[in-house]
Amino acid sequence: MNSIEFAQKNKDRFIAMRRDLHKHPEPAWLEYRTAAMAADRLTELGFTLVVGEEVVKADSRMGLPSREAMKAAMDRAIAEGANSKWVEKMGYGFTGMVATMQCQPGGPVVGFRADIDSNDVIESDDPGHFPNQEGFASCHHGAMHACGHDAHLTMALGLAEYVAMKKDTLKGTFKLILQPAEEGVRGAKAMRDAGVVDDVDIFFGMHIGFDKKLSGCLACMNPGFLATTKLDATFTGYSSHAGGSPELGKNALLAACTAALNLQAISRHSQGASRINVGVLNAGTGRNVIPDTAVLKIETRGETTEINDYIKERALQILKGAAVMYDISVATEEVGGAPAGQNTESLALEIQKLAQDSGIFKDAPLVYSGGGSEDCAFFLERVIANGGRGTYMVLGSAIPAPHHNPKFNIEEVDMINGIAWLGRVAETYLK
Amino acid sequence: MNSIEFAQKNKDRFIAMRRDLHKHPEPAWLEYRTAAMAADRLTELGFTLVVGEEVVKADSRMGLPSREAMKAAMDRAIAEGANSKWVEKMGYGFTGMVATMQCQPGGPVVGFRADIDSNDVIESDDPGHFPNQEGFASCHHGAMHACGHDAHLTMALGLAEYVAMKKDTLKGTFKLILQPAEEGVRGAKAMRDAGVVDDVDIFFGMHIGFDKKLSGCLACMNPGFLATTKLDATFTGYSSHAGGSPELGKNALLAACTAALNLQAISRHSQGASRINVGVLNAGTGRNVIPDTAVLKIETRGETTEINDYIKERALQILKGAAVMYDISVATEEVGGAPAGQNTESLALEIQKLAQDSGIFKDAPLVYSGGGSEDCAFFLERVIANGGRGTYMVLGSAIPAPHHNPKFNIEEVDMINGIAWLGRVAETYLK
Amino acid sequence: MNSIEFAQKNKDRFIAMRRDLHKHPEPAWLEYRTAAMAADRLTELGFTLVVGEEVVKADSRMGLPSREAMKAAMDRAIAEGANSKWVEKMGYGFTGMVATMQCQPGGPVVGFRADIDSNDVIESDDPGHFPNQEGFASCHHGAMHACGHDAHLTMALGLAEYVAMKKDTLKGTFKLILQPAEEGVRGAKAMRDAGVVDDVDIFFGMHIGFDKKLSGCLACMNPGFLATTKLDATFTGYSSHAGGSPELGKNALLAACTAALNLQAISRHSQGASRINVGVLNAGTGRNVIPDTAVLKIETRGETTEINDYIKERALQILKGAAVMYDISVATEEVGGAPAGQNTESLALEIQKLAQDSGIFKDAPLVYSGGGSEDCAFFLERVIANGGRGTYMVLGSAIPAPHHNPKFNIEEVDMINGIAWLGRVAETYLK
Amino acid sequence: MNSIEFAQKNKDRFIAMRRDLHKHPEPAWLEYRTAAMAADRLTELGFTLVVGEEVVKADSRMGLPSREAMKAAMDRAIAEGANSKWVEKMGYGFTGMVATMQCQPGGPVVGFRADIDSNDVIESDDPGHFPNQEGFASCHHGAMHACGHDAHLTMALGLAEYVAMKKDTLKGTFKLILQPAEEGVRGAKAMRDAGVVDDVDIFFGMHIGFDKKLSGCLACMNPGFLATTKLDATFTGYSSHAGGSPELGKNALLAACTAALNLQAISRHSQGASRINVGVLNAGTGRNVIPDTAVLKIETRGETTEINDYIKERALQILKGAAVMYDISVATEEVGGAPAGQNTESLALEIQKLAQDSGIFKDAPLVYSGGGSEDCAFFLERVIANGGRGTYMVLGSAIPAPHHNPKFNIEEVDMINGIAWLGRVAETYLK
Repeated sequence: MNSIEFAQKNKDRFIAMRRDLHKHPEPAWLEYRTAAMAADRLTELGFTLVVGEEVVKADSRMGLPSREAMKAAMDRAIAEGANSKWVEKMGYGFTGMVATMQCQPGGPVVGFRADIDSNDVIESDDPGHFPNQEGFASCHHGAMHACGHDAHLTMALGLAEYVAMKKDTLKGTFKLILQPAEEGVRGAKAMRDAGVVDDVDIFFGMHIGFDKKLSGCLACMNPGFLATTKLDATFTGYSSHAGGSPELGKNALLAACTAALNLQAISRHSQGASRINVGVLNAGTGRNVIPDTAVLKIETRGETTEINDYIKERALQILKGAAVMYDISVATEEVGGAPAGQNTESLALEIQKLAQDSGIFKDAPLVYSGGGSEDCAFFLERVIANGGRGTYMVLGSAIPAPHHNPKFNIEEVDMINGIAWLGRVAETYLK
Repeated sequence: MNSIEFAQKNKDRFIAMRRDLHKHPEPAWLEYRTAAMAADRLTELGFTLVVGEEVVKADSRMGLPSREAMKAAMDRAIAEGANSKWVEKMGYGFTGMVATMQCQPGGPVVGFRADIDSNDVIESDDPGHFPNQEGFASCHHGAMHACGHDAHLTMALGLAEYVAMKKDTLKGTFKLILQPAEEGVRGAKAMRDAGVVDDVDIFFGMHIGFDKKLSGCLACMNPGFLATTKLDATFTGYSSHAGGSPELGKNALLAACTAALNLQAISRHSQGASRINVGVLNAGTGRNVIPDTAVLKIETRGETTEINDYIKERALQILKGAAVMYDISVATEEVGGAPAGQNTESLALEIQKLAQDSGIFKDAPLVYSGGGSEDCAFFLERVIANGGRGTYMVLGSAIPAPHHNPKFNIEEVDMINGIAWLGRVAETYLK
Repeated sequence: MNSIEFAQKNKDRFIAMRRDLHKHPEPAWLEYRTAAMAADRLTELGFTLVVGEEVVKADSRMGLPSREAMKAAMDRAIAEGANSKWVEKMGYGFTGMVATMQCQPGGPVVGFRADIDSNDVIESDDPGHFPNQEGFASCHHGAMHACGHDAHLTMALGLAEYVAMKKDTLKGTFKLILQPAEEGVRGAKAMRDAGVVDDVDIFFGMHIGFDKKLSGCLACMNPGFLATTKLDATFTGYSSHAGGSPELGKNALLAACTAALNLQAISRHSQGASRINVGVLNAGTGRNVIPDTAVLKIETRGETTEINDYIKERALQILKGAAVMYDISVATEEVGGAPAGQNTESLALEIQKLAQDSGIFKDAPLVYSGGGSEDCAFFLERVIANGGRGTYMVLGSAIPAPHHNPKFNIEEVDMINGIAWLGRVAETYLK
Repeated sequence: MNSIEFAQKNKDRFIAMRRDLHKHPEPAWLEYRTAAMAADRLTELGFTLVVGEEVVKADSRMGLPSREAMKAAMDRAIAEGANSKWVEKMGYGFTGMVATMQCQPGGPVVGFRADIDSNDVIESDDPGHFPNQEGFASCHHGAMHACGHDAHLTMALGLAEYVAMKKDTLKGTFKLILQPAEEGVRGAKAMRDAGVVDDVDIFFGMHIGFDKKLSGCLACMNPGFLATTKLDATFTGYSSHAGGSPELGKNALLAACTAALNLQAISRHSQGASRINVGVLNAGTGRNVIPDTAVLKIETRGETTEINDYIKERALQILKGAAVMYDISVATEEVGGAPAGQNTESLALEIQKLAQDSGIFKDAPLVYSGGGSEDCAFFLERVIANGGRGTYMVLGSAIPAPHHNPKFNIEEVDMINGIAWLGRVAETYLK
C-alpha cells in the first residue's frame, strides 16, 4: 500500500481527527488536550516520546499566559478527555514533544515539525460556515483553529502512522517535532534551544492554505518568512472623574490611540517588505473615568532582520513619544520573535521534481512568498547552520476566508493529499 | 437626644456599616447584597417597603448588564450573606426600593434619595490607602466604592433610624428612595417613571466629597450638574492575517483610535461648559490579526441640554466618519442620560440658614458648582415641575484622591456629621 | 447739535470712511495706510499726536512680521495714498498712536481705545456678500476686516470729531488710543508698557458685533475676556525621497498633525472655560519629499490665568511628545498674550442707565460674556490697578456670519449709532 | 578622440554648465531658462529642433502651475538671460523639446531622454554643502536641483555634442528628448501622447545618484519603478472666531491632520512594495480663526498598477471619511501619474557587457531596484509595446544626502564619466 492508498483508505478517520481538534482549539502554551491526544496516539504507534521540559527550554519561552490560565486549561483538558499523565508531564508551559522512530540503521535523521496551537479568534456563527454545517465549530469561545494547525497535527499523525507502518523498509531516524505556541512565534525558540534539531540532517515544515490560486498545488519552498518581533506595551496614567475634574487625569487611552495610529504610520522601508500591526488595544476602566491604563499588543515584521529592527526601533520611539505627550509612563516587553526564513534551494528543487512526479498535485511551483512570519525559521536556521538541509513547503487549499478570519477553513481533501505527500517525502529521504 | 447626639452615640456602628459596604461594592444594576441589607434594616425600623419592579419602570432602565452578569451577582450576593427573599424580589434588573415612614398626620411628603452602586475601578493596593490600612478594601476585583455611595447609603440608613425614633414628634410622610445605577446615570429615570417622587413636596439629595476646600462645610445647592448622554459605539471591520494578507483586512481598531482622538477634540462651546470622555476602548482579538471589532464607551456632557446635544451630534458624526474612513460599519446605542440640574433657590437659602445655625459645619456656602452629572436631576426636575421644591446638597470631605480614582476615600467623620445634619433637616421639614 | 444729530448728519461720510478702510485692510503691525489716514484726520481736528516708538514700547511688542513684510506694507501704503511723513514716523513695527484733546481745565482724563488691524482671512467672493454688492470688498488678498476694526476706527474718528466740536463745553482731557495688532493680542502690551494709560481716570473700550440677539442693543460690560497665550511651534525633521528612501526621512508633517489633534484634545478644565486652536499649519516642501518642516500657529485661552496656564503647559508637553515620537526637534515661541478681562461694575451700571436713557438702544443689558480674548485687558488692568475705572462695552449688530468668517459684515446703521453713543459718553464724563 | 578623451578634455566646460543649471533651478513646467539654454546649444550643434506644443500634448499635461506662476517664470528666465525666442515658443506650459540628428542612412532610431526640472526644496545654507563652498547654490529660494537633473541635462548636451562630432561615422537617427516636469511625474505622458517616441527603436534613460554603494558603477537596468498617482485634496470647512464661537466652525485643519495620519497608516500590501506620502499640508488662515481650508499634496505608489490602485482607493476613502467626520467637503484631483517600469532584459545584458568592457566603471551590476517612480516609464512602455527595446540605467554617485534632501549633491566626476559612457552607448547602437 503506497502513501496515496494509505491516505485514501484512512480518510474518514483523519477527517474525524481534524474535526475533533478543530472543535477543541487550545491557544499557545495551553495545548494540553491536543498534545495529550497526540502523545497517546504516538505511543500506540511505537514512537519514543520526550514530552515537556526536556524538549522546551524554560528560559527561552516567550509570551507565556498566566499560571491561572494554565491551570484552567489543564483542568479543562482533563475534563474534555485528556490523559492526565501527559498533562502533568507537561506542567506549566511545556506543551511540546519530540517523537522518534528508529528505522533500519544507516540512513539520515529526517525531521518534520508540526505546530499545534490555535488562534485568539471568535469562530463565526454563520450557518454557512462549514464547521457549523458539520457541527465541529469551536466549543471554546474566543479560541479557533483559524490557521489550519488542526490539519497540521492531523497530517503529522497520519505521517507518523505511515512511517510506523513502513519502518522495516526505511533507513535512518524519523523525528516528529510537535511545537506549541507558533502563534505569536513564541515556541520554536525554546525547542531549538533544547537542542531538538541539532542532529537533524534533512528538515521539513509545511503549512496548509495561504492562497486560493495554489489550490491543488504544492509550493516547494517559502523563503519569504518575515523576521518579526512581538511587543506588549502598557501605558499607565492617572484616573479622575471625567465630569468633575477631568483636568486632573492623565489619559492613557488617548496616549495609546495616538501611539496606535502613529505605529501604523511607520514609513515603509525601501530595501524590502515590512509589516506593523496593533492587534489588540484595551484601555480604560469605566465610562466616566479618565482612563489610567492601556495595553497594546503589537507586532513588527521585516523582510530582513535589519528591516524588522528599523520598524521595532521606530515603534519603541513612538511609544515613548506618546507617553511624553500625556506625561505618563510606558513599559514595553518583547514577548515573541523570529528571524527571517531560510530554505535550502537544492532540497526544494528535489522536492519539486518529486511533487511533479507524485501524481498528487496539479502543479508544483518552486517558490511561494507570503508575508507571514513563522518561528519554524529558528529550526531551519539551526539545521542549515549545522550543514543540514531544510525547506518549508506550502500545501495549497481553497480557503473561503483569509487566515485568522472567523470564517477560515481548509479543504479537507487537501489535508488527505498532504498525508499522502508527506508519506512520499519520508520514504524518499529515509533511504 | 438630638440628631448630633444620635450620630455621635452610634458612630462606631455607622462606620462599621460603611466599611462593610465599601468592602462589598456592587456595580450598577447588580446591587443585590447592598439593597438586601438595606431592606432588612428598614424593615426592622418599621418602614413600609416597595422593592423591585413596582418602583423601577422596566422600559425606562438604561445600560443593563447581561442576564449572566445579573445571575452571577445574585449568586454572589447570597453567598455573601444577602437575604435571598429580597434578591428574588429584585429579580433581573430591579435593584431599587422605596421605604416610607408615615409620621403624624398633616405634614408634607419629604423625600430623600440615596444612590447605592459602585464604580468600575480597581481599588488601589497601596498599603497607605486607608481601606487597606483598616482592612476594608474591595474584595470584588474591578469594583470599588470610589464615589462615596457606601457613605450615602450609610447616611440614608442613619437618617431612617433617626426618623423612626422621632416619628411620634414629626408630621407628614418621610420617603426614602434608594436608587441603583447612578454611575452611568442609568437608574433614576426608571424610578421617576415609576412615579416614586410624584407625591413629594420637598426633596433632598446629597453627595459627599468633591472638593477638599469644602472639608467640614456644607454647600446648600448644586445647580451645576451637566446634562449628559452615555453612548456605546461598536465598529465592525474585517479580520485578516496581519503578515500574510494585511490589505484584505478592514481595521476596526484604527477606526476606533481615530474616533477617540477626534471625539476628544470636539470643539468647546462658547455658551457654557461641556465634557467628552472615551472611558473604555477595547479592540482586536489577537496580535497577528487585523482587528475586526472595537467597542468604545463614551459620554458627553453639557451645561445645558443644547450644549450636550451639540457634543452628542458631533460625536455621532465623528463615529460615522471614522467608519467611512475604514469602509466599515459602526453601531451606536444610548445607554444612559440625564438632564441638566435644577435646584429651588428658596429652599437652598433656608437650608443655608439652618446649616449655619446647626453647629455642625464650619461654613455653609450657598452654591457649589461641579462639573459632574447626576441623574438625581430627573427627580428634581419632576418635583419642581409638580410645584414642589428640591435641592441637592454637597457635604464636603477631605478626599485624598479625585472621585473615581483607585485611591479615593472619604473622611468618616464627615459621614457622621452628615447623619446629624440629615436628621436635623428631616425634623425641620416634617412639621 | 447733540451727538445723535451729529451722527445722522455725517452718516454718509462715516460710511464712506468705513468702506475705504474695509477695502484696504492691513494686518497686525502693518497698519501704515490706516494709521496715516487717522493721523491726518486727527491733526486736522486739532488733536495733539504722538505717533510711533514713543507710544509703542519696542521690547514689549510680540509677534512682529518680518522686516521684508513691513517694507512691502510701507510701500503699498504710500502707493495707496498714505502720507509718507507718518509712514516714516511709524517705521518698522510702531504703528500705534495717541491723540489728545485738552478741553476746559478741571475734569478727568477720559481714555478711549480703538484697534485698527485686520484679519488673515480671504474675503468671500460671493456676490451676495454686502461688500461685494457695494464694491468695497478687500483689495488685499488674504487680508480682511472680519472683526469690525474698520468700524472701530471710524467710530473713534467720529467721536474725535464730536469732541473737537464740543471741546469748549467739556472739562478734562480726552485721550484717543489707536492700537495696532489686536489680532493675536500683540499690540496693547507694548502701548501699556509705554505708559499711555498711566494717567487715565476713566477708560472705555468697545467692540461691535458678537451676537445677533444684541442687535440694536448695548451691553455695558464684558468681563468674560479669556486669558490667552499665542504660541508658534516649528518642527524640524529630515527630508528624503518619499519613493526611494522613505525610511531615511524624519517626518515633521506627521509630528505636526499628531500634535494638532492632541492639542485640540486637551481636556476641558472643571474650574472654567478654556479654548485651544491650531489656526494655521504649514508643512512640507514637495509632494515626493518626506516633509522636514512644519509650523503651527497655536492659541490657548482660559477663563482665568490659571486655566490658560494649564492649557499652555499641556500644549508644550504635547508638542514635546510629538517631537520625541518622530525623533525630531521642536522650537516654541510665545508671540502674543493677554490676561483675563476686568471691568469696573459701578461704571458699567452708570453706563447702563445712560444707555437706557439715551434713546439710541432697544435695550442695554449689563453684561455680555463672550469667549474671546482682547488685549484691551492690559489697559483695563492698568487703569483699575491705578485706582481708575474702566469698562469694555459691546455694541450689538446683526452680523450675517461669525467674526473671522469670510462673510463677516456689520450693519452700518449700528456703527452710526455707535458714534452717537460714544459722543454721549464723552460729554457725560468730560465734566 | 574617443568618448572618454572627449569627456575629459571638455570637463571644465561641462562642470560649469552643470553649476549654472544648479544655480538657476526651475520647477516643473517652468523650465524656461533651462530649456532655452539647451535649445540655443542644440541649434549651434546642428540639431533639428521641435520645441513646445508640437511635442507636448496639451490635454495630457498634468499638475500645471497657475498662469501667473508661468508668466513670472518666463519673465525671470528672460531677466536671467534666456533667449526670448524660445520662451515665447514654449508659451504657457510647453517647456519640452525634441532635438534630432540625422547621421548616415540605414541605422536605427536611438532615443535618449533627459529630464530638466528641479525640486520644491529649500537648498541648505550649511557652509559645508558643496554648492555653497563653490558658490553655485540655488539663487531661487524654494527651488533646488536635489535630484540631479542639472547633471542629467549636462550629460544630455555632452552626448549631443559627441554625436554631432561623430555624425559622419554613425548610422541612423539620434533623438534627444528633453522632458519637463518629471518631478510629480507630470510631463512624460504629454510627450508620449505627442508621439515623440513612436519611431524609436532603441531607447535609453539614465539617472545619477541613488546609492553610495553604486559609486563608480553603472546598473544596467532599473525595473523597479513604482506605479504612482499624484493627488491634490482640498478640504473646505467653515471659519469662525476661535475664542468667541468655536462651535460654529467646521475645522478643515483637523480633518486634514486626521486624513494625513490615516493615509500614512494605509496597510502594506502583501503582494509587493507600496508607498504613501503626504508631502505638503497647508491649512488655516489665522491663529484665532477656526481653519476653513486645508490642502494636501499626496502621492501613492505600488510595485504594480494593482497595488498602486489599492493605495489610491484607500486614500480616497480616507479623505472622504475625514470630510464626513468634520461635516465638510473634500475635492480631490489627480495631478500626475505613471505606470510601473519595464526594461528590456536583452538590451540590459548587452549594456552590461559594454559597461564592463568600457574601462569607465568599477563594476556594472545588471539590476538596480529603487523604490522611486519615473514617468520615463511612459516612454519605455510605448517603445516596448511598439516592438522596440529600452532600458533605464543608473549611474552611481556618492551622494552626501538622500535625493530631495536640502544637502543633496552629486560627484561631478561621475557626471563626466556619464558623458563618456553615453557617447560610447550612442556610437555602439548608431551602427
